[in-house]
Amino acid sequence: MAESDLSYMSLALDLARATKGQTSPNPVVGAVIVRDGMVVGMGAHVKAGEPHAEVHALRMAGELAKGATLYVTLEPCSHYGRTPPCAKAVLEAGIARVVVAAADPNPLVAGKGISLLRQAGVDVVVGVGAVQAKKLNEVFFHYIQKQTPFVTVKTASTLDGKIATRTGDSRWITGEEARKRVHQLRREHDAILVGVQTVLADDPALTAREQGQVTGRQPLRVILDNHLRIPDTACVLRDGHAPTLLFASDQAPVERQRQLESLGAEVVRLAGRVSVEQVLAELGKRGISSLLVEGGATVNGSFLDARAVQKVVHFLSCKLVGGAAAPASYGGLGQSFMQDAISLADVEMELFGGHDLCIAGYPVWKEEGSATCLRD
Amino acid sequence: MAESDLSYMSLALDLARATKGQTSPNPVVGAVIVRDGMVVGMGAHVKAGEPHAEVHALRMAGELAKGATLYVTLEPCSHYGRTPPCAKAVLEAGIARVVVAAADPNPLVAGKGISLLRQAGVDVVVGVGAVQAKKLNEVFFHYIQKQTPFVTVKTASTLDGKIATRTGDSRWITGEEARKRVHQLRREHDAILVGVQTVLADDPALTAREQGQVTGRQPLRVILDNHLRIPDTACVLRDGHAPTLLFASDQAPVERQRQLESLGAEVVRLAGRVSVEQVLAELGKRGISSLLVEGGATVNGSFLDARAVQKVVHFLSCKLVGGAAAPASYGGLGQSFMQDAISLADVEMELFGGHDLCIAGYPVWKEEGSATCLRD
Repeated sequence: MAESDLSYMSLALDLARATKGQTSPNPVVGAVIVRDGMVVGMGAHVKAGEPHAEVHALRMAGELAKGATLYVTLEPCSHYGRTPPCAKAVLEAGIARVVVAAADPNPLVAGKGISLLRQAGVDVVVGVGAVQAKKLNEVFFHYIQKQTPFVTVKTASTLDGKIATRTGDSRWITGEEARKRVHQLRREHDAILVGVQTVLADDPALTAREQGQVTGRQPLRVILDNHLRIPDTACVLRDGHAPTLLFASDQAPVERQRQLESLGAEVVRLAGRVSVEQVLAELGKRGISSLLVEGGATVNGSFLDARAVQKVVHFLSCKLVGGAAAPASYGGLGQSFMQDAISLADVEMELFGGHDLCIAGYPVWKEEGSATCLRD
Repeated sequence: MAESDLSYMSLALDLARATKGQTSPNPVVGAVIVRDGMVVGMGAHVKAGEPHAEVHALRMAGELAKGATLYVTLEPCSHYGRTPPCAKAVLEAGIARVVVAAADPNPLVAGKGISLLRQAGVDVVVGVGAVQAKKLNEVFFHYIQKQTPFVTVKTASTLDGKIATRTGDSRWITGEEARKRVHQLRREHDAILVGVQTVLADDPALTAREQGQVTGRQPLRVILDNHLRIPDTACVLRDGHAPTLLFASDQAPVERQRQLESLGAEVVRLAGRVSVEQVLAELGKRGISSLLVEGGATVNGSFLDARAVQKVVHFLSCKLVGGAAAPASYGGLGQSFMQDAISLADVEMELFGGHDLCIAGYPVWKEEGSATCLRD
């Protein structure tokens, strides 16, 4: 692997990163074409239905693509989808060498694009910048392989772990800069989920806003509400900014379902009580590839207990609120022993506004065991 | 103020810092003597009863002290205590100029040393490095002014704010490096306090250890135990590594008190239930200038509710344990509204072992108010 391969792939990854949050259900992809040490083409996939990254880069390169090297963050596709196959376009343009960061995660097509290029005599290198490319498309890789959304649980607590005071007041835990980041997070997700308790307590809008204005792509709003207790006056039923989907038990009152549907909400009934597994399966079927869980302790705890958390984003405000009755960020059953706590991998920390720390990481699931007790 | 004044005072502060934890009940003090741009004397107060920092520095400088500048982190004393007054020694040595970081916080003697020097014709500058000097002696300044110990509450929780699992297991939340730091913290304090619940649950030794060995100065062990429920087998009653002081209600059984005293513990009975204020007053009378609270949720919450926390040291481990029944670091009553949360000033963060974050800061107490509710 040449030094320059890494640096051109790094540029392709930057191009891909620039479109984060706008390509769903497609992955973000960046492409760079280099000929005789000169960058002659650059492109990224902008939006589902639009041309792929390679096509943009090939168009920019024009005749200069002949004999050049293409750097692309994801394996070029080999099938006719909403757009013609990129591998074919690459061949037609006369590209001599292709450097791919990550193979397509879709088991049905993985490796086919690469094979097609190799069979046509193109020199193909795979794996340059693979770790970054997979992380950049962590949602896409997860969804393609599991058919359920990639779940990020976002929480915000005081230093003593409270998400509200004993009276339920939670405005605000973090400052403006951290809350602004939360709205970006919402915009990057296909759906956002809370429990009905949060609706009853806070009546949140669950929209992605910029300076208070609802703008751009909005996530689907998902409410877990076994008994359909959500009030008609709830903001998510009234504001019309995004569709709202309610998950209820099959025991919930039919009349209430009709009322809520007449307000524009969709109601999905599930057998027994609403479970995390059922919800994720249903959302997956609907093409929801990324889900932001902003629940209270009960909902967050249910996702943790179900081991259905791919990423944790926790905002920590450097203040104390105290109170034995003040709720924590994760309830549920939890682990029995501290040694079975779920550690986070690839932890990243970022300070917002000088006092709010954002800690993000990936839960590492392991088997339960028993603790050995030592004297402190 | 000359640039060089700052840099010599910075050296004096370093000398003082080097003796942190070993001078109680005295402050840490550093002194530097400079003549014609040459450092000719350096000293620090090593231990109560031993010479003050200025005396060590003057001895080192010898004849070179004549006409020199003395940098000292705290106002030279003017009274006969366990050692003769330093201001007198400074004059006798022929020091021409004295730069002081902070005046003596003791209202009975503050400014007297400075006056004495000025009256004798010495050029005295006060306030260079004052902020650092006061922080370095935060314990001493607090104790001299309030006559009660400076209280540091040390907690350790998972990212979701739990100090134990739902079953009460808490070993271990943080890794070895963070726990090593906790033993240093213990060594820096005159006393360490927990509630009887912690003794019953964990049977801690509450000693300052190095590689598992109890070495050096040990803090007094203080247990809040209204009904004297501590078992005879408790480590703090048995190991003999440090004295143990029990605070009980005046309703506690007399017979139990006798048994505990025969095991070597001291019992102090307080009117009604044991309160934070009573405990701090009693410890203050006994010359305890610094108290490390390592309580469970109830004890920590009581100190927070009593606004009796001068410093917070929180270790945060990047893992999740979940559980609605798992305890948090601060219980008690707590604040009613999030806007009345107690923010921390001068927050410092340090990473231990790559995964445990230590967040330390100083609570800023303000008046209670009412929250305004905004839509999220």
